Amino acid sequence: MMSKIRLFTPGPVPVLPQALKAMSEPIIHHRSADFIAILEEVRKGLKDLVETKQEVLLLASSGTGAMEGTVVNLFSPQDKVIVARAGKFGERWVHIANAFGLNVVPLDIPWGEAPTREQIEKAFKENPESKGILIQACETSTGVDFPVQEIAAFTRTQNVLLVVDAISYLGVSPFQMDAWGVDALVSGSQKGLMLPPGLSFVCLSERAWSTQKKSKLPRYYFDFAKELKSMTQNQTAYTPAVSLILGLREVLHYFKEQGKENIFLKYKTYSDAMREAAQALQLELFAKSPSHGLVSIRVPEKIDGQKIVRELRDRYQMTIAGGQDQLKGKILRISCMGHIDALDLVSVFAALEKVLKQEGAQIPFGKGVERLQVRLLGEKV
Amino acid sequence: MMSKIRLFTPGPVPVLPQALKAMSEPIIHHRSADFIAILEEVRKGLKDLVETKQEVLLLASSGTGAMEGTVVNLFSPQDKVIVARAGKFGERWVHIANAFGLNVVPLDIPWGEAPTREQIEKAFKENPESKGILIQACETSTGVDFPVQEIAAFTRTQNVLLVVDAISYLGVSPFQMDAWGVDALVSGSQKGLMLPPGLSFVCLSERAWSTQKKSKLPRYYFDFAKELKSMTQNQTAYTPAVSLILGLREVLHYFKEQGKENIFLKYKTYSDAMREAAQALQLELFAKSPSHGLVSIRVPEKIDGQKIVRELRDRYQMTIAGGQDQLKGKILRISCMGHIDALDLVSVFAALEKVLKQEGAQIPFGKGVERLQVRLLGEKV
Repeated sequence: MMSKIRLFTPGPVPVLPQALKAMSEPIIHHRSADFIAILEEVRKGLKDLVETKQEVLLLASSGTGAMEGTVVNLFSPQDKVIVARAGKFGERWVHIANAFGLNVVPLDIPWGEAPTREQIEKAFKENPESKGILIQACETSTGVDFPVQEIAAFTRTQNVLLVVDAISYLGVSPFQMDAWGVDALVSGSQKGLMLPPGLSFVCLSERAWSTQKKSKLPRYYFDFAKELKSMTQNQTAYTPAVSLILGLREVLHYFKEQGKENIFLKYKTYSDAMREAAQALQLELFAKSPSHGLVSIRVPEKIDGQKIVRELRDRYQMTIAGGQDQLKGKILRISCMGHIDALDLVSVFAALEKVLKQEGAQIPFGKGVERLQVRLLGEKV
Repeated sequence: MMSKIRLFTPGPVPVLPQALKAMSEPIIHHRSADFIAILEEVRKGLKDLVETKQEVLLLASSGTGAMEGTVVNLFSPQDKVIVARAGKFGERWVHIANAFGLNVVPLDIPWGEAPTREQIEKAFKENPESKGILIQACETSTGVDFPVQEIAAFTRTQNVLLVVDAISYLGVSPFQMDAWGVDALVSGSQKGLMLPPGLSFVCLSERAWSTQKKSKLPRYYFDFAKELKSMTQNQTAYTPAVSLILGLREVLHYFKEQGKENIFLKYKTYSDAMREAAQALQLELFAKSPSHGLVSIRVPEKIDGQKIVRELRDRYQMTIAGGQDQLKGKILRISCMGHIDALDLVSVFAALEKVLKQEGAQIPFGKGVERLQVRLLGEKV
């Protein structure tokens, strides 16, 4: 009976239709004048989004590639780095830094919480020779936002680089690279930028660029100096992900047209409403300082979270995310990133209520959807 | 007056329309059952194309990323490797190997020629401690095919790995990974596989996998062991380039439907006809053992090759490639890879003849197009 595919995972997310359309046009050559003009436009749009005077580099890789690139460009073997480990992507920073021979000091934070500025300060005071502090802006595995601005307010006064994985943050909530004093931003195409995966972004501060010149890890594909030189000529060092960049232009148009603040506000409104809907169902929220791009909900006692995810998929062709690793089966994650509107959120709660009830959860049936109707279906959606 | 965009560069190439269509469908999640089934199909199709029992890994990167990945997975610092340097992409092997601290022995071949098996044998006998021999299957910068099968017939009997960049070769001409005894194949999406750039391929022989386990260069994003483990579960280690993989499925369908031998024959016929057309125009061919995917033509004396490329672009919205580095302005490269048919080749020669004549070249005007009409426009195109 049901046949439409509905995607509510925190990456990939439903792609902006204008971007899909642009990506389905016949391809153009990446050294052509047309593409150079497009890259110039994209460059400007990305700087506006990130709020920086620096160049935002474009890499043909997933976000993990850009994370690795940042590590190999900014550090040297044996460098000490502090990694806030509050979920799966904090762990990824640890794995990458270890793979390249850095000396990792993990700062362990319970999954579901964010590190505070004070915890970061303490860790740095105990390890003052640290060259970098690696954090997430949003830890996608738990749905938690970190206080990046507060942490940056500390790190900018110290001789240490703040490296921020904003893969599921950029385009969802305000990010002010220069004003906050972030040293390295990493992001990807398949979250707030509403594109398919395969394109990633990096932006370095002035002091990060100075460090980049001196760092001694081997690199070639992710050589940021080479990419920077190319980017100032509206080029990339190697063949770029042309079709994704054509899509990106459309996304950046959309941000400009709508006003990025309005998009950020929409996500906040949507995710707040979903959290209220979850609470109206007497479900417990998991994230302490929740992301605006996704909500994470504790699965009620005795219910198998993996089964909930499976039933939604099998019965409604709807994909939400479960928990990963230590959270497997214990949380549900529902994203509102990408081409999703208020009625889509009604649909996900309508299906979720049905499945939860079927699995025996004691929920006030209908109250989640009702909450969304009240909160989101006003005069004009 | 003219408005259609025509692309005859050796990457990117015109994308297969079925693939464009698939890529413009709403995106699906990379851990979904649907995507897993697609990956299973793609896995099988790639093995058929490469003619191997090994897995063909999918990376979200351009071909250069896959080249780097192969180097960091197969070698250790100080390892000696022989690189056949016969053009810009041979140089790229040298740069990558140097970047990761290998001991590079370049085997210099004049641009426009290919190394012979004898030259490779001699270089290896002079450097018997070499761990690898790095070559191109097609050197895109010159349009030259290397005798991969002959070289592999030697290397498979020796304790050395043959690493082949087949980026502009795979899907254009037959490649028999296992039967020939190639140790590492590297390829990309935007040439013979008729897709946009951003997806790359790697396949290792059994003995290359043994070496991979012992190699000591740092790696994370390009960790082939991790990708292999994922691939056997129809997954990728990190978020894959989902939309390109959806397109790839269509391309592999097309190869199966048409029969890959017929596609290889088409390219041979097309490129042979273009070479005859160039000779009918009294132009000199540049490549000694020419590729079937592109032709490279010497620019006549006193004519500026860059201007020819520019005029084609400005007057006809047509993109062909010029020469790179030492060949700048000296050769023209016209590709028939991707979604290109016989009448497209007529169009490129029609425009080329006009521009050459305008620039003062002494050519028998009309004879190139006529040659293509005779050779390619038979009963059924």
